[in-house]
Formats: sequence, C-alpha cells, structure tokens
Amino acid sequence: MDMLWSGWGDPAKAAPLPDTVIGLLRDLLGVTPREDGPAALDEIAVPESTLTAAAHRALAGCLGGSAYVRTDAESRIRHTRGKSTPDLLRIRAGDVDDIPAAVLLPAGHDEVLAVLRVCTEHQLAVVPFGGGTSVVGGLAPERSRFVALDLRRMDALLDVDEVSRTATLQPGLRAPQAEALLNARGFTLGHFPQSYEWATIGGFAAARSSGQASAGYGRFDEMVLGLTVATPEGTWETGRAPRSAAGPDLRQLVLGSEGAFGVITSVTVRVRPLPATRVYEGWRFPSFEAGTRALRALAQDGPRPTVLRLSDETETFIGLAHPDRIGGTDGAAPAGCMAVVGYEGTEADTALRRAGAREVLLAAGGEYAGEEPGERWARGRYDAPYLRDALLDAGAFAETLETAAFWSRLPGLYAAVREALTSALTDAGTPPLVMCHISHVYENGASLYFTVVSAQGDDPVAHWEPAKHAANEAITAAGGTISHHHGVGTDHRDWFAREAGPLGVRALRAVKAGLDPAGILNPGILIPLP
Amino acid sequence: MDMLWSGWGDPAKAAPLPDTVIGLLRDLLGVTPREDGPAALDEIAVPESTLTAAAHRALAGCLGGSAYVRTDAESRIRHTRGKSTPDLLRIRAGDVDDIPAAVLLPAGHDEVLAVLRVCTEHQLAVVPFGGGTSVVGGLAPERSRFVALDLRRMDALLDVDEVSRTATLQPGLRAPQAEALLNARGFTLGHFPQSYEWATIGGFAAARSSGQASAGYGRFDEMVLGLTVATPEGTWETGRAPRSAAGPDLRQLVLGSEGAFGVITSVTVRVRPLPATRVYEGWRFPSFEAGTRALRALAQDGPRPTVLRLSDETETFIGLAHPDRIGGTDGAAPAGCMAVVGYEGTEADTALRRAGAREVLLAAGGEYAGEEPGERWARGRYDAPYLRDALLDAGAFAETLETAAFWSRLPGLYAAVREALTSALTDAGTPPLVMCHISHVYENGASLYFTVVSAQGDDPVAHWEPAKHAANEAITAAGGTISHHHGVGTDHRDWFAREAGPLGVRALRAVKAGLDPAGILNPGILIPLP
Repeated sequence: MDMLWSGWGDPAKAAPLPDTVIGLLRDLLGVTPREDGPAALDEIAVPESTLTAAAHRALAGCLGGSAYVRTDAESRIRHTRGKSTPDLLRIRAGDVDDIPAAVLLPAGHDEVLAVLRVCTEHQLAVVPFGGGTSVVGGLAPERSRFVALDLRRMDALLDVDEVSRTATLQPGLRAPQAEALLNARGFTLGHFPQSYEWATIGGFAAARSSGQASAGYGRFDEMVLGLTVATPEGTWETGRAPRSAAGPDLRQLVLGSEGAFGVITSVTVRVRPLPATRVYEGWRFPSFEAGTRALRALAQDGPRPTVLRLSDETETFIGLAHPDRIGGTDGAAPAGCMAVVGYEGTEADTALRRAGAREVLLAAGGEYAGEEPGERWARGRYDAPYLRDALLDAGAFAETLETAAFWSRLPGLYAAVREALTSALTDAGTPPLVMCHISHVYENGASLYFTVVSAQGDDPVAHWEPAKHAANEAITAAGGTISHHHGVGTDHRDWFAREAGPLGVRALRAVKAGLDPAGILNPGILIPLP
Repeated sequence: MDMLWSGWGDPAKAAPLPDTVIGLLRDLLGVTPREDGPAALDEIAVPESTLTAAAHRALAGCLGGSAYVRTDAESRIRHTRGKSTPDLLRIRAGDVDDIPAAVLLPAGHDEVLAVLRVCTEHQLAVVPFGGGTSVVGGLAPERSRFVALDLRRMDALLDVDEVSRTATLQPGLRAPQAEALLNARGFTLGHFPQSYEWATIGGFAAARSSGQASAGYGRFDEMVLGLTVATPEGTWETGRAPRSAAGPDLRQLVLGSEGAFGVITSVTVRVRPLPATRVYEGWRFPSFEAGTRALRALAQDGPRPTVLRLSDETETFIGLAHPDRIGGTDGAAPAGCMAVVGYEGTEADTALRRAGAREVLLAAGGEYAGEEPGERWARGRYDAPYLRDALLDAGAFAETLETAAFWSRLPGLYAAVREALTSALTDAGTPPLVMCHISHVYENGASLYFTVVSAQGDDPVAHWEPAKHAANEAITAAGGTISHHHGVGTDHRDWFAREAGPLGVRALRAVKAGLDPAGILNPGILIPLP
C-alpha cells in the first residue's frame, strides 16, 4: 500500500477533527477553516521528465527492464520531498518543483552499484528513498535533475544469528515488516519511532533514528553492528565485531550520513528476545521540572524503564494526540505533567524494574495514575501525523521540532525554544500553542520534542520560516544539538555546519569527495555544497 | 615518577621470578637464563638530535622557554617506542633507532596548536605522547625526524557537571590522578585497564581503550561525550549532546584516530557516583565453553556484573598473574576454568545483581568459588606487566594480543588463534604456552585476550614476528577484529587496512588530508602512508 501522497499514512485512517476542536482552535488560536483542500493528484501540473533516452536505457539495463525506471507523473509525485509540514503544504498546493526525473527500483546491492555508475556517467544526482518520511528536507537535493532510488524491492531478512542475537536486514524493509519477520524467529528489534508504520531500516540507519522505547532498546545507531554501503566508488563494508579498537568506528560515519556517502544496502542489527510482558502506565508530576528530575533519577541510577516520556504542562493539558479529549472535555482540566512509563521484558524482569522505578518515581513526587494513560498513549502512539493532516485540513498549522542536550542545559534550552517559537509566531500575528515532551533519556541528558499549533497565516510556508529559524538559533545558542532524531537534511544544514564546526564539515566533505567524487549522492543534503 | 625506561612501571616494584618458576619454565618450555641484562641507560649510544636550531627556537617560543623542548638523551630514550614486548626487547638491547629528535612539553591547547604550526613549517613529524604505554607500535612513526609531544603538563580536571554527571579532563592526566580528582568530588570514571597506573586520558580516547570493568562502566569510547582536538588546521570541537542525529557522530571519528588527525586536548566524559560497595568473586566452570555460555547469558539477559572475565583451562591452570601460585604449588592442580565476577555500586543494587547473576551462573553449570579468587585477581590486576619484565629477565618470551568477535564466531576464533600461535612458535623451535581469557562482554559478542610464553629463541624480536603475523592472519580469517582494545599503531596497520577495506582507508586518508595536509601527525600510524 502506498502512503497518502499529500499527507500521512493510510488514506483510510484519515479522520477530520470533531467540531468541538475546530471551535477551540478558532477561539484559542484564531484558526479559520480553509476554503481550498489539497489539489487532486491528477490535476497537478508535472513537468516532463528530464531523464535522457540514453540514461533511461542505461538505467533500465542496470535494473533488468524499464519497468523499474518509472517516469510517470504519479510515481514521481509520490517521491517528491518528504513529510515535514512545509513539504505537505507545498505538495497540497500542487507545488512539485522538487520532483525527481525518475524513480528507480533496484532489486539488490549490485543493481545499486550499477545505477550509481550510470548516474555518475550521466551526471544524474541520486536521492536514496526508503519510506519517504523525512521531516527535514532530506529528499529534496540542491540539483534540478535527479532520480529517486526507491529501495522497496530490497526487503528481505537476510540472516538471523541466534547465538549472537544479530539479524541482517535489507534497507527497504519497513519497520513493521522487519518486526514481523523477526517476531516469527522469536526476536524483536525494539525500534518504534513515530514513523514506524512507514519508515524503513535503511532510513533509520541513514538518519540515526531513535524510537519511543529507546530507554530500553537504545537508539537505532546503538543497535547497528554492521553496514554494507554501495558507493559510486564500490562497496564499503563495516562491522566485524560488536566493539573494536581497530581505528575510528567507521559504522558511525555511515550512520547519519543521510545518503550523502553511499546507499546503505544491508544493516546488521542487534535483536532481543520478544518480550513476554508489556505494560505502560501513567505518572503525574506537579511540574515539568519535577517530572524532569524524576526522569533524570531513573536515567542515571535506574532501574531503567523501556519507555520513559514526560509531557510539559501545555502538552498534558491539551493531550494533543487524542482529539476526542483535547481541552479536557469532561470539564476537569488535568493539572501538572503526565509521564508515560513503560516496561517490556520477561515477567520477572519487568516486575522487578517496575517495583524499583515506582519507588524512585514516588520519591521524586510522582503520583501513580494507573495504566489507563499509558495504554492510551500506546494505542495512539503512531497517530499524531494523522492528526496533523486533520489540523491542516481545518486551516491550522502544526509542526514539530526536536533537540537534545546535557541535563544541566535542559531547562534553559526548553525556555529558550518555547520563547523563540512563541515570539516569532506571535510577531507574525498567529500566536501559537507550544507543547513539549521529553521522550528519550540518557545518563547525561535528554531530548526535547516540541509541537507547535497556530493559525496558518496568509502564506503558511512563509509563515513558518522565521519561527523555525528562531527555534534553530535558540537551540544553537542554548547548547542543544540541532537534531536528536529527525536528522539534518537541508532544513538543518546550516546549523549542523555550525555545530560540526569548519573542521568537522571539512572532514565530512573530504569523506564525501573520496567516496562520491562526482558529487551525485544527495547533493546539498547534510553538508553544504562546496 | 617516571616509568622504568626499559620495562614496565615503578622500578621499585620489580620482582624477580622465584626459582621454582624458573625451574618450571626450563622444564616446560626450555627457557634458559640469559647472561645479559638490559643495557644501562647511560651506556646507550644516542644519536645527536636532528632538531635544527631554527626549529628549536621556534618551538621554545611556542612553549614559553627551552626548558620545555628537551633534547637530552634520557628524555629522548624515555620517549622511544612503547611497551610491547618487541619494544622492550629492542630498548633493552640499546636499540634506539626510533628515537625522537626532541620531547616537547606543552602547557595547554593553544601551545599545542602553536607547536603544530611550527612543526608543519619545519616539516617535523609529531607523535602525541601520553603514558607511553602503546603495545602496538603507536609511538614509532615511519619518519626518521620527529618530536614526541608529551602531554603530562596538561593534567587538570577542568570541569565537573554534577547534574549531567560529566567531567572535562585534560589529556595528560594519568588514570589514577583523574580517578583521585573525581573521587574527591564523589564520582568515578570507572575505567581500569591493565595500563591504568600509567596510561592517560588522552591515550584512552585516542586508542579506544577498554577497562577491566567494562561490563559495568562501558568502554572508554562509550564514556566520551565531547572532545577538543588541536589540528594543524585549527581547533576541532565535538559533542553538544549525549546523543544526536545531527550527522555522523564525529566523536567516533576522533576516538581511535591514534593521533593521526590531531592532538586531543580535552575530553568530556560520563562519570558515575563512587560505588559504596565492591565485591569480586570466583566461579569455576567445567570448561571454557561452559564458562563462555554463562558469560553470554549474563551479557545478553543480565543481570550484568561490573567485572566479568573467564580464563581458559591453560590460564586457569597457570594462574599467570600470581607467580607464587604458578603450577598449583600446593600439588592440587585446579581443573576447569575460573571466572572472576565483580559487582560495584550501591549496596542494594550490588546485592540484587549479585543474587540474580548467581542464579544464572549456577544454572549454567558454575560452581561458586568464594571471594578469595576474586579478591586475589583484584589485588594483582595491574601486575602482569611486571611479571613480563621478570620473565624477560629470566630468558623467557612473553607477549599478549587480543581480538573480539560476535558470539557465534568466538569458538572458531579461539581455536584458530591458539593453533596459529602454537604452530608458528613450535615451528620456530620454541613451543609456547598459550593462555586466553574473555575480559569484555557485549550482548552480541566478546573479546579474547591471549598471553603467550615461550623460550626467546636466538633473536627474540625476529622469533616473535612470524607468530604475531600468523595470529593476525588467523584473527582476520576467523572473522575477528584485529584489536579489541590495544589499537592499530603500526603493528596492526596492514590488517586494519584489510578490515576497514579500501573505501574505509580512503575515507580515513581523506579526513587526515583535510586536517593535517602536511602529514606531520603520526605518519604511518593507523593508516598506511599514501
């Protein structure tokens, strides 16, 4: 099944906002319904493919037939940009400026190598495409002529090593497919980001993804033990042991490279036994600060839950992911901050950690809120992007951004980003609701994930730009990283360059020049063009 | 205090072998006492320093005086090579072929930057020098004219962030100094490699060190959160957050770079509260295979001890680190394999993990051997290099090497390396004792650490070369990494190049060319000269 071309997910799951919420949006934020809906797919004016006949022939030769070199309008529209709100606003308006010349569907590593050789010859840029879920402009290169390399046919589980608890997966496997294949062998990957239903293994690796159960299962980059990469200069393999002192860890150079160095064609990951037990519960804290202290206590001294997330006061009040409950429809607005704490594992281990964490949470001022808030979160955990579509339909603007920092910097970072977003959008005449949660914790720090809802303004894309810019500046000034798990893409590139510093950028450019001398791979993504 | 120039550690701690052991070495391995001891320090024929007067002046200008540009014979001898057995055999024989032209003692980051500029101008190679404990040829560049950059004056604890539990340390801090400074603040680094008493923070980072308590505290590269590096092209800073999706993790490019990209001038690390309790105990297993299964069970399903190591049958029988007990002097030779299992932490946490691990170890066929073997290990944990000196004095050859692999490959790797070492040294007429232990475990694999003892042969350095070569080939063929924690240096360079592959080497060379265009930093170490 294909994702909704103009929004998120399974078109059958789209649900409009209830009238009460539309009323609230109007009263709180001045949101007025839009007259115009998204353009119709077949009405979009798609420019002719710029793929030359010679390149088409050569690519068809690599891919075993022209069936795997698609130049039809729908295929190309479906591979135009990603799923950030500006991406959606543009595509809904029929703007396909960043459309690929063709969509290629390779069946394996050797076909990818062959495609990269042909594209080097024909000076065609190549954008590797997994689930297409980038929210940072990771699929819109700074080159007018490019092809999308869709890896969906490379969707096999290649190997399971039950003794070492590793599995080797092809990059085009969507997370639920990968999970199902591993579950059948008694294992889980444990990687459940919000993009879970659509994103792919290759994309997780390329973008250093982190899932909602990262407290227990780790980040995706911590799960990866080996990678095979097809580059214009040949095959690059990394990972002979879980850990090594044989030079810098080159896996970590591939992870986060966002397709700029090569195309990831297989990923060997750590897997874990399927948990016998899963339980999610709610805890209420008097303030975000108190809740943060509680999360820090668990992250630093344990026991470590599998899922650990805390909404700030605004997000708790709004309960964004559950439109039927927005604004506390029972009249009793919840006070304080809600945390979701989850445990997965064997029955004994889960019980032990749960009992231990309970003591820590109580000592930190938490109040147990039962399993209902946790189970509700678990049911709706992949729903927020659907809600965004409904908000856009209703004339509202909604977007997310995220960062991470050391614990001591977290309060300042939180305040600075809220202030930056609030000021910029208020100045634009569309005062926003700014919500935040912590969803990934480490011994030494945590992530902050912001959701912004406002009216759209006259030009919704232009309206967001100064706010996003202000947030990026605030993150950088307050000592946060420009992305905890969304990645760099083109949207964060300039701030990433500041974070990496001139010598960090020089090192990355040098690697790219060595592996992709013609500069065909994702030009302008991750690192600025030279 | 300076380390023994011709061997290991504090000269006052040197202890000759007991006569019973000398007798055993003779009877078992044909070791015959050597007539000649090490050369005397003042008898070594040291070539004149090749440092030009102009370079000397310029370097003295960078370093605030010529007191910090040392060209005397003793300083230079003390910075000649590292502490591998071939290194010791060469220096004991008075071979100072790899002697630096001068020893520089910078006081801070800016002085290091200035030194690198001057050395670039004067085409002087630079070898960063911490504790001088490399056992892989990491201090002997492929350049006849070089200076050693000794970082001992950069030995401050720069910052402790108690909330985030991080500390920023200068690179020249020796581990015990760093530990004492952190202990005074209530924290521990938890990094206790065998080189602990002499090795430095900068060296740990440059070489991706791993300590004896890695099961609990992690590897050094897992502790590092930020790095400042002085390069010939300027300052490179990494690490704004514990984890990030802002591009590849550039910290991991510095870690393991072995001085080839720049000089690490500060390291921000994760610290942990000083443990209230430390307990080490012994467990006996019927075989190395059974013990390995037990370690794997703990590594994969927990609870995770802080220290977890298992000696094979030969190492258990010999008890190498305890010369007074070698060969079971009480007549009752111990059978099977001994594991040391240690716990550090709060009293409650330690008790909980100990009780849980006990069940796992019993179920895996382990027999509890009390605390005595664990405490004995803890007392002698830094003594093995002293024993090596005594063995060399007694005319024996002793060396170690190590690797790591995924669990499923470990038995094959173990057998292949043992066989390679045994065959090569038997062919050379000096049949060895080959011992092994597992000392670092991960969910997906573990390390293997081999100790070899034999007679020296006529030319002890030449005698070891084919055996080391055979072991490296066996490691590579059996799917191990060429080093789990010793590093690459010059000794493992060719095998590292095969492990990284042509594109991995190309990427590293590209980074080096970007940061060190004149190629002055550790030429020939880590990556082959272009």
